[in-house]
Amino acid sequence: MTDQVPRQPFAGSKDVRRLRVTLAYDGSAYAGWQAQPAGNTVQQTVQRAIAALSGEQVVLHGSGRTDAGVHARAQEAHFDTTAALAPSSWQRGLNAILPPDIRIDRVRPVLPRFHVRRDAVTKEYRYLIWNAGIVPPFLRLYRTPVCAPLDLNQMRAAAALLVGCHDFAAFTANPNREVPDTVRSLSLLTVSRRGPEFTIRAVGNGFLYKMVRSLAGHLIRVGTGAVAADETVDILRLRQRTARVQTAPARGLFLWRVAYH
Amino acid sequence: MTDQVPRQPFAGSKDVRRLRVTLAYDGSAYAGWQAQPAGNTVQQTVQRAIAALSGEQVVLHGSGRTDAGVHARAQEAHFDTTAALAPSSWQRGLNAILPPDIRIDRVRPVLPRFHVRRDAVTKEYRYLIWNAGIVPPFLRLYRTPVCAPLDLNQMRAAAALLVGCHDFAAFTANPNREVPDTVRSLSLLTVSRRGPEFTIRAVGNGFLYKMVRSLAGHLIRVGTGAVAADETVDILRLRQRTARVQTAPARGLFLWRVAYH
Repeated sequence: MTDQVPRQPFAGSKDVRRLRVTLAYDGSAYAGWQAQPAGNTVQQTVQRAIAALSGEQVVLHGSGRTDAGVHARAQEAHFDTTAALAPSSWQRGLNAILPPDIRIDRVRPVLPRFHVRRDAVTKEYRYLIWNAGIVPPFLRLYRTPVCAPLDLNQMRAAAALLVGCHDFAAFTANPNREVPDTVRSLSLLTVSRRGPEFTIRAVGNGFLYKMVRSLAGHLIRVGTGAVAADETVDILRLRQRTARVQTAPARGLFLWRVAYH
Repeated sequence: MTDQVPRQPFAGSKDVRRLRVTLAYDGSAYAGWQAQPAGNTVQQTVQRAIAALSGEQVVLHGSGRTDAGVHARAQEAHFDTTAALAPSSWQRGLNAILPPDIRIDRVRPVLPRFHVRRDAVTKEYRYLIWNAGIVPPFLRLYRTPVCAPLDLNQMRAAAALLVGCHDFAAFTANPNREVPDTVRSLSLLTVSRRGPEFTIRAVGNGFLYKMVRSLAGHLIRVGTGAVAADETVDILRLRQRTARVQTAPARGLFLWRVAYH
């Protein structure tokens, strides 16, 4: 019986490969990234496309969740497969199956130890605001309208106070829901303007639940004069969520980029 | 009976005013501008909103038709009304009633002799092309994807040959359908590039049916090398539509601006 060596999983069948997927989606029609019983999520939609293409039921790991209505310019994900398909065939095949509001930009083989969430070094989100009378209909699902004129300098002053390592409990929707530690490091938080469009860029190593939308909601209120920029320090020090911070709508938020070493 | 002076129409009731409307629309869901029996057009949708707001059945005159799926950044229209509503109330009221893919940017009173189509001096259209692998899902309804690399210089050379006063019979879908005279004057036809995005700008005093999409289709084929730029002169001289010109898809086309004196 000594020749009965325990076999590796899948040994003797095809090799298992790990594939990294870079994808963009219009979140308008989805209940967010993360799988839910109702099934109308980006994760499940892509998993079904993978099953249709390869016959395999896989788990598609994302770099993080995006909420209902939030968009992704470049979400990152990975899954394991034994299917003998070239990465470019995966890309074309998935795009042929997927609805047009989800597009696979790139599929590439990675080492089996690569993990799209654990290995992420920084994430960048952008929050886009239309600060003029009427949002052009082409942008209605991708910009948050703010009618009152925004003061760029006040928004920048408040943003500067938020950069760095802080307890962001005041800037998350359910601070004690899952995460007891609400300290995060924001390496960049900027506000820029181009014509009627304001862009808030947020880069960090991790974000709490609804943190970027809370930062955006705060900066918008500073911009309209509802809150003074220097109140930002007091709000941070509270370490709890109050009505002084509001969550900005999902439609203006884009997961812009996930960076790896 | 000499005191029985014939009355002006509406005399004794409210005054008739002419209002000019500047509006933007996402044409994706509409069978174009012009009223049709099925009713799913931009003109009819706005007319119904006017009726809902004022109780009046009006004809909304447009500066010109746009085809099914074609967008407008700034279409111009006018209608006559006796309703005692301020222009800003018309604008807000119509936007509250209209679906979000049609937005009224401005309503202003004009003289009764102003006519939005007859008084238009020039019209500008823009045709937007995404010349990279995958169109971002946020732009899927507003850009025409072209995968093969486009040669900007060849497109510009062909465009230069089309500027001016020509018989554009080769660049219209049904040259003899309604318009016996197919001579038009293109005052500007340019191609520019910004990253993966190509923009064709066309300005003229009048355009034939599907003329801009035919010009765009031709320039795309020149850009990919399917047609040589200098064949443009031969095609113009044919004065009839052939397979050498193709109509580019509606989704890339925007009515950009209508200019008045």
